[in-house]
Amino acid sequence: MARFIVGVMGGGEGASADVCREAYALGSLIAKEGWRRLNGGRPAGVMGASARGAREAGGITVGILPGKDAREASPDVDIPIPTGLGDARNYINILSSGAVIILPGGAGTLSEAALALKNGKTIITLGFPLPEVLEKYRQKGLVLKASSPEEAICLLRTLRQGMLSGPE
Amino acid sequence: MARFIVGVMGGGEGASADVCREAYALGSLIAKEGWRRLNGGRPAGVMGASARGAREAGGITVGILPGKDAREASPDVDIPIPTGLGDARNYINILSSGAVIILPGGAGTLSEAALALKNGKTIITLGFPLPEVLEKYRQKGLVLKASSPEEAICLLRTLRQGMLSGPE
Amino acid sequence: MARFIVGVMGGGEGASADVCREAYALGSLIAKEGWRRLNGGRPAGVMGASARGAREAGGITVGILPGKDAREASPDVDIPIPTGLGDARNYINILSSGAVIILPGGAGTLSEAALALKNGKTIITLGFPLPEVLEKYRQKGLVLKASSPEEAICLLRTLRQGMLSGPE
Amino acid sequence: MARFIVGVMGGGEGASADVCREAYALGSLIAKEGWRRLNGGRPAGVMGASARGAREAGGITVGILPGKDAREASPDVDIPIPTGLGDARNYINILSSGAVIILPGGAGTLSEAALALKNGKTIITLGFPLPEVLEKYRQKGLVLKASSPEEAICLLRTLRQGMLSGPE
Repeated sequence: MARFIVGVMGGGEGASADVCREAYALGSLIAKEGWRRLNGGRPAGVMGASARGAREAGGITVGILPGKDAREASPDVDIPIPTGLGDARNYINILSSGAVIILPGGAGTLSEAALALKNGKTIITLGFPLPEVLEKYRQKGLVLKASSPEEAICLLRTLRQGMLSGPE
Repeated sequence: MARFIVGVMGGGEGASADVCREAYALGSLIAKEGWRRLNGGRPAGVMGASARGAREAGGITVGILPGKDAREASPDVDIPIPTGLGDARNYINILSSGAVIILPGGAGTLSEAALALKNGKTIITLGFPLPEVLEKYRQKGLVLKASSPEEAICLLRTLRQGMLSGPE
Repeated sequence: MARFIVGVMGGGEGASADVCREAYALGSLIAKEGWRRLNGGRPAGVMGASARGAREAGGITVGILPGKDAREASPDVDIPIPTGLGDARNYINILSSGAVIILPGGAGTLSEAALALKNGKTIITLGFPLPEVLEKYRQKGLVLKASSPEEAICLLRTLRQGMLSGPE
Repeated sequence: MARFIVGVMGGGEGASADVCREAYALGSLIAKEGWRRLNGGRPAGVMGASARGAREAGGITVGILPGKDAREASPDVDIPIPTGLGDARNYINILSSGAVIILPGGAGTLSEAALALKNGKTIITLGFPLPEVLEKYRQKGLVLKASSPEEAICLLRTLRQGMLSGPE
């Protein structure tokens, strides 16, 4: 059976060193759980750091790329999926993730948080300020807030148990 | 030469009567300028009301649909484009619009505002609260604020002149 | 109500002068019927010639572009839809067409014929050799053969009547 | 570094028992080479059989799904990528494959062969009749013909060496 796939979304070129450190830790922790890590796959910011963290902990990482060439992936991505779809690939990032961790980022990250919630995916924010217009999803229980990578993983573990014991 | 295409984005089923009235007025005013109106094309909320406004003023409207069947379009859509891409079609909405008016809406509208700015499109907000994370685009001059449909059109007219006199 | 949209597919840069003449005639005839003409929208081969034919006969043409910029459209395209999806836009070409005329072309044209049939669209071949593997769709009545632009239009008129009198 | 990803395309529900046996063998051989197997991911025909072959030989398989739900994947798919893009996902199948083996199939398979060649990917046909309109790609060296799964793998091995020693 397919293993749990966790999306780790956040800033690219503009991500701070602190955010990249958290992304690296998340990649590492996800790998240690035996889960897969997935995101946009480029060698920048949260994408690059979380891939490196997962790879160095022996995990498998998937990168859904905006362009047509697998060589645009981070060297730590194990399964590069070049889509040729530009930012439309953000939708695939979301659908392919069982749950999504949202770190600080810009417009692309925001579009992923919005599309995730619209499509019924749970998001875990880690330093990402949820816009007012998405607050209603918090009331539906789709938005969880973590204050560290470790807490994000703990929330995912709990969530995953709920998923596994659920009707589907 | 192709005429100016204006995206009118905002809430679907959840849009209020006031917002729908503004969407209707925008559709009408866009048609009177001789421009095309474009959005997600379904017969709901801002999509449906702006299409009706444009159609009743003699304009041509384009609807980029999420599903595979042209018949899911609002009856006021003149050019239905079924994409079969689900929410990934939001990206096409943005790329196909010369500029985008953003009315109040939910997660889908937010994803369109974010993708528009990320792709260098000017957005005109009309009652839509811009999330903090997108504020930097206001400083780049890509976010304009209107307080009425008439003012939104006035801004577009000014913007259009800048586009026409520009180097490309 | 939305008007009938006819896809006109065929070779791009490699299309012969004869094929372009037929594409031009098809564009013109489609416009005279009051239908819309749709295809890939670039200013080359069948795309460019059919757009010019339709435009010069007063018709409205839609171009579903592979890139992100409306300016890559043929100057005769009235409604350019930049998708940013590369060849994935061929799927949208097909879904957006009520029926599809297939002129001689290459790999792109072949992919459009295949996707059209797979999605239940009727194709009218005009000089396009149907591959063996698609012959089963001829037996289902989804492949019609025309020997001139006029005959293709005649087939579409008949087909259109069947659509209009049908249950949906 | 990312490992070599091989696309295995062919008929779905309509695939014969013989074709499924070859797909199973291909999946198995690909896994033994240490490569990844990728295709449309559904539990039918060539998709299902090649995934089973790869899984039972200890390999990792990727499934690019047309729908929105990972649960529509074959149980042997290790990395399901639900795209929500319908048949537009065929384009991603192609871009994500370093090379593509084409078994007998229908319209979907044909569209994949056409898009692969149009995008410069090498295809290896195994019982798939290449349509006349794609013959020019054989002259460009992009179409190779195998008469058994073993020969297909041998061709891929040779091809892979050329790729690795090439300028990029």
